[in-house]
Amino acid sequence: MMKEASMYIPTLEDMRTARARITPHIYVTPVLTSRMLDELSGAELFFKCENFQKAGAFKARGASNAVFGLSDEQAARGVATHSSGNHGTCLSYAAKQRGIPCTVVMPRTAPQAKKDAVMGYGGRVVECEPSTSSREAVFAEIVAETGAEFVHPYNDHRVIAGQATCSAELIEQVEGLDAVVAPIGGGGMVSGICLTLSGVAPQMKIYAAEPEQADDAFRSFKAGHIIADDAPNTVADGLKVPLKKLTWHFVQKQVTDILTASENEIVEAMKLIWKRLKIVMEPSSAVPLATILKNPQIFAGKRVGVIVTGGNVDLDKLPWN
Amino acid sequence: MMKEASMYIPTLEDMRTARARITPHIYVTPVLTSRMLDELSGAELFFKCENFQKAGAFKARGASNAVFGLSDEQAARGVATHSSGNHGTCLSYAAKQRGIPCTVVMPRTAPQAKKDAVMGYGGRVVECEPSTSSREAVFAEIVAETGAEFVHPYNDHRVIAGQATCSAELIEQVEGLDAVVAPIGGGGMVSGICLTLSGVAPQMKIYAAEPEQADDAFRSFKAGHIIADDAPNTVADGLKVPLKKLTWHFVQKQVTDILTASENEIVEAMKLIWKRLKIVMEPSSAVPLATILKNPQIFAGKRVGVIVTGGNVDLDKLPWN
Repeated sequence: MMKEASMYIPTLEDMRTARARITPHIYVTPVLTSRMLDELSGAELFFKCENFQKAGAFKARGASNAVFGLSDEQAARGVATHSSGNHGTCLSYAAKQRGIPCTVVMPRTAPQAKKDAVMGYGGRVVECEPSTSSREAVFAEIVAETGAEFVHPYNDHRVIAGQATCSAELIEQVEGLDAVVAPIGGGGMVSGICLTLSGVAPQMKIYAAEPEQADDAFRSFKAGHIIADDAPNTVADGLKVPLKKLTWHFVQKQVTDILTASENEIVEAMKLIWKRLKIVMEPSSAVPLATILKNPQIFAGKRVGVIVTGGNVDLDKLPWN
Repeated sequence: MMKEASMYIPTLEDMRTARARITPHIYVTPVLTSRMLDELSGAELFFKCENFQKAGAFKARGASNAVFGLSDEQAARGVATHSSGNHGTCLSYAAKQRGIPCTVVMPRTAPQAKKDAVMGYGGRVVECEPSTSSREAVFAEIVAETGAEFVHPYNDHRVIAGQATCSAELIEQVEGLDAVVAPIGGGGMVSGICLTLSGVAPQMKIYAAEPEQADDAFRSFKAGHIIADDAPNTVADGLKVPLKKLTWHFVQKQVTDILTASENEIVEAMKLIWKRLKIVMEPSSAVPLATILKNPQIFAGKRVGVIVTGGNVDLDKLPWN
């Protein structure tokens, strides 16, 4: 049943349904600009600030769409996922809004702050060993025990339709964009952008931005099939996960190009954004600016939307300290 | 002549003139809220985010008012000040907007980043020794040489009328505030709040928030006369300067109370704001939240405006690292 669900390709209509459904539970996030960053890039940059989103990340959109799309009967059994990142926190947030149980399976080695974030919204954290086999075994047990609905962090049509609402807002907030740049990990946000723009603004270019040290999407895109890395290592820790079938569908068909940046370029871009926009955002969210600054031949003179995906960063472990 | 200017008490009309004058040169900054910070404080908090202001601080308001209020003849000779903080940067910003020279006298020991910020807007930095006598001598020389108009960081009616526009915006953005809390150093922002609220919302309480380790305003307020400390030491480095005649006029007459917070409380409040509001702001701007959390008996159940004064912080030297 999970497999079938993941094969359904969400549509523009699904995005519109999602938007109506999640409106009470999410923020319309602001778009910020900086004259100095425009001068530096030669482009006009419009930062869509999902770091200000509920639970601190765009993933509140997809999670809310999945949770509020459940029938009452399904909802009563709760939701479950495996994620040591923003999806777990955001699913817990959405479940709390609906008043249903949420279980998140996490490696016992995950940072305590991530576990606290899930529990802060009333979610339950179940620990597994830091291996795929342990995670799958523990997760199967949870689902068998509770009957909870699995909400995958990105390979889920409900999640993608939810993430797609972000770019729908952006193009209403900023007129005449030439391109949108978003970080790519599993591809949920990028798939959402593809979904929306291919339907309502097909002339707009879509760039995915990825760390050089976790460039599996870049290599997949060039190779024409999914390549999953074993254990990539990057400061942009939200971007380590591989593409899956559903996100690959969107990425291979509708992304203009995938651009990469080095660790150092990512950290420098992150500092620039903190310093100039005065916002707290994650290393993953800095990858787009890093690639824009690196590729003036693509972006100079253009109006460019930049997705700032989230703001959940450990202030005690900033990457430049 | 400087003395005469500083004796004039700015009025509500001056604030309105300032507002019209500076509108093209400043942002109407957003007001942010956080459900979690509301829960923690028991109050409804409305953060007026001057960290997003032009040049990164509310001081762009007062500086712009002073600069754009000059006659063409005065303006041609430029402006000058002594400040190793935001006022120097903001005066340089305003002067650039008008296309006139700006000179900022700074101790040679001031951080290079502060000098760079002034120069980044085209201002000239002139170094003095880190002593009052050297600063005054060097500054007198600059004025004699250029005929530049002195714009004091806060003891200046034009500057106070400019800062007063911030609270005028705030009370239009948020209805029914019971109180406003702002950090106090020299008292420019607080005087501006007094000016505006005493005129248009006299029932609203005004609290000034100060570091325990630089509590000269607190002691002045209790004593009934200005007490200036010699060299206070606090992480809230924007708040080390003493009250002066003009700001004392407002503070002693119209401030409801002055509340203090320890260094540790300030740093904890700063982290809370970064973490929950996802904004980059200065230690000085965290003092209000620190005092609010410390005094629930004053603020519980109230709608409270909190002035986030600026966002110019050295990311390489965060106070919790």
